[in-house]
Amino acid sequence: MPTDRYRIHPGAAVDLAAHDPDDRALFDGTRDDAEAVIGAQTKRLEALQELLYAENQHKVLIVLQAMDTGGKDGVIRRVFDGVNPQGVKVAGFKKPTPDELAHDYLWRVHPHTPGSGEIAIFNRSHYEDVLVVRVHGLVPADRWQRRFDHINAFEKLLADEGTTILKFFLHISKDEQKARLQARLDDPEKHWKFRVGDLDERRRWDDYMAAYAEAIARTSTRHAPWYVIPGNRKWYRDLVIGRIIVATLEALDMRFPPPEIDPRSVMVE
Amino acid sequence: MPTDRYRIHPGAAVDLAAHDPDDRALFDGTRDDAEAVIGAQTKRLEALQELLYAENQHKVLIVLQAMDTGGKDGVIRRVFDGVNPQGVKVAGFKKPTPDELAHDYLWRVHPHTPGSGEIAIFNRSHYEDVLVVRVHGLVPADRWQRRFDHINAFEKLLADEGTTILKFFLHISKDEQKARLQARLDDPEKHWKFRVGDLDERRRWDDYMAAYAEAIARTSTRHAPWYVIPGNRKWYRDLVIGRIIVATLEALDMRFPPPEIDPRSVMVE
Repeated sequence: MPTDRYRIHPGAAVDLAAHDPDDRALFDGTRDDAEAVIGAQTKRLEALQELLYAENQHKVLIVLQAMDTGGKDGVIRRVFDGVNPQGVKVAGFKKPTPDELAHDYLWRVHPHTPGSGEIAIFNRSHYEDVLVVRVHGLVPADRWQRRFDHINAFEKLLADEGTTILKFFLHISKDEQKARLQARLDDPEKHWKFRVGDLDERRRWDDYMAAYAEAIARTSTRHAPWYVIPGNRKWYRDLVIGRIIVATLEALDMRFPPPEIDPRSVMVE
Repeated sequence: MPTDRYRIHPGAAVDLAAHDPDDRALFDGTRDDAEAVIGAQTKRLEALQELLYAENQHKVLIVLQAMDTGGKDGVIRRVFDGVNPQGVKVAGFKKPTPDELAHDYLWRVHPHTPGSGEIAIFNRSHYEDVLVVRVHGLVPADRWQRRFDHINAFEKLLADEGTTILKFFLHISKDEQKARLQARLDDPEKHWKFRVGDLDERRRWDDYMAAYAEAIARTSTRHAPWYVIPGNRKWYRDLVIGRIIVATLEALDMRFPPPEIDPRSVMVE
């Protein structure tokens, strides 16, 4: 599949500097051409999601991770534009509450995993517990190091019990982040998205890249692959992610369930 | 520790027929003597649970599994008699709801795991998904076979993140179950506990013993050991379980947290 270009193979080393955030190898048209393709893909995704919901067999989990301004909200808005919210649930994971911190770090995540017929989208996820937690030294190294095994086992459980998992790292350059943060400062309607803490995190860019590289390398598995998506061009990012999701749902080979009885035998009075 | 007698060592084969449900090797007094010891143990458990709650560091998970009439309810009532319900939570797991069945089998369990300072008691547990599910063929064998790995990984996650886990199989003989079921039929105040389905399950006794033996053998780990407790004598069962729990809590070497300020410097007006 052409989208394999961005898939991280199990056991492969990851050097994010070698992944070009401006790559556009899978599409050689203009941005307008891309928008038309994205629109068609979204229609197809809508139909596939309805089928998933009707068949009520498969569960789908989509994990989105990125640096600030990386485009997680944008992907959710654009790629899932028009799908039925009844079968698609977005869960966001911000700073944990005291009650969440009193439990293991998957405790707050597990309840939001999808049920049969559902798509769950994680806007940030359990990966924060090997990213922000590592970069800020919130728990000792020997503790977060063990988490890669926990996470792989957790995702294996979900996969064995019927969940299809896709994980996307939206990869932007440090310069692109600068431009997007500045845009938030310049636009009064985007001020609400700007937090001073974002600048602190930006100063730790290299630490985050190292943490992402190790997390992605250690947890990209056959049952829960990571994709490193070029993120500098929003339209390209949305096009590629949409294409991967559509191809993955197509491969499930879903069918509408048979009617309970022959519909021709029923007269609605 | 003398209670190691009933602990299943990691990797050891389990033959339940070789475990005598009438064993009473750890206590040579009378039943009255035992009641006095149980009373003292319960007082000690009360104090340890208060300390656990105050220190707010450790989490404790106790899993109880048994055949019908095996004594799960009795253990909860007797061993935890008098502890503060604020820090001790009992979760029972019966036939799953449709919403629970739409998710992986640990989905309904995870939310009930203990937080810091808490003791959680599972009255039945995720082990039903390799016991009743196996005996009744509710999922194919290749699916429940994978669950031993999931369960070990799940319990490893909990342990790595600060949970002390104890798992008890209350081991009664088939004759003892017969007597207890008959007692339920004979006592109008116990009729509510009798279900006709219990007799179906009783007919599958040997299948259950095989399922328990494999489950215990494959999931007794250093971080989450199984204990096979002689269950025919209720007082002996309660005495041994209480002793194991008290010894485990003692070994945590807990301390009351230091006061925020020197209490002698405060005058309450």
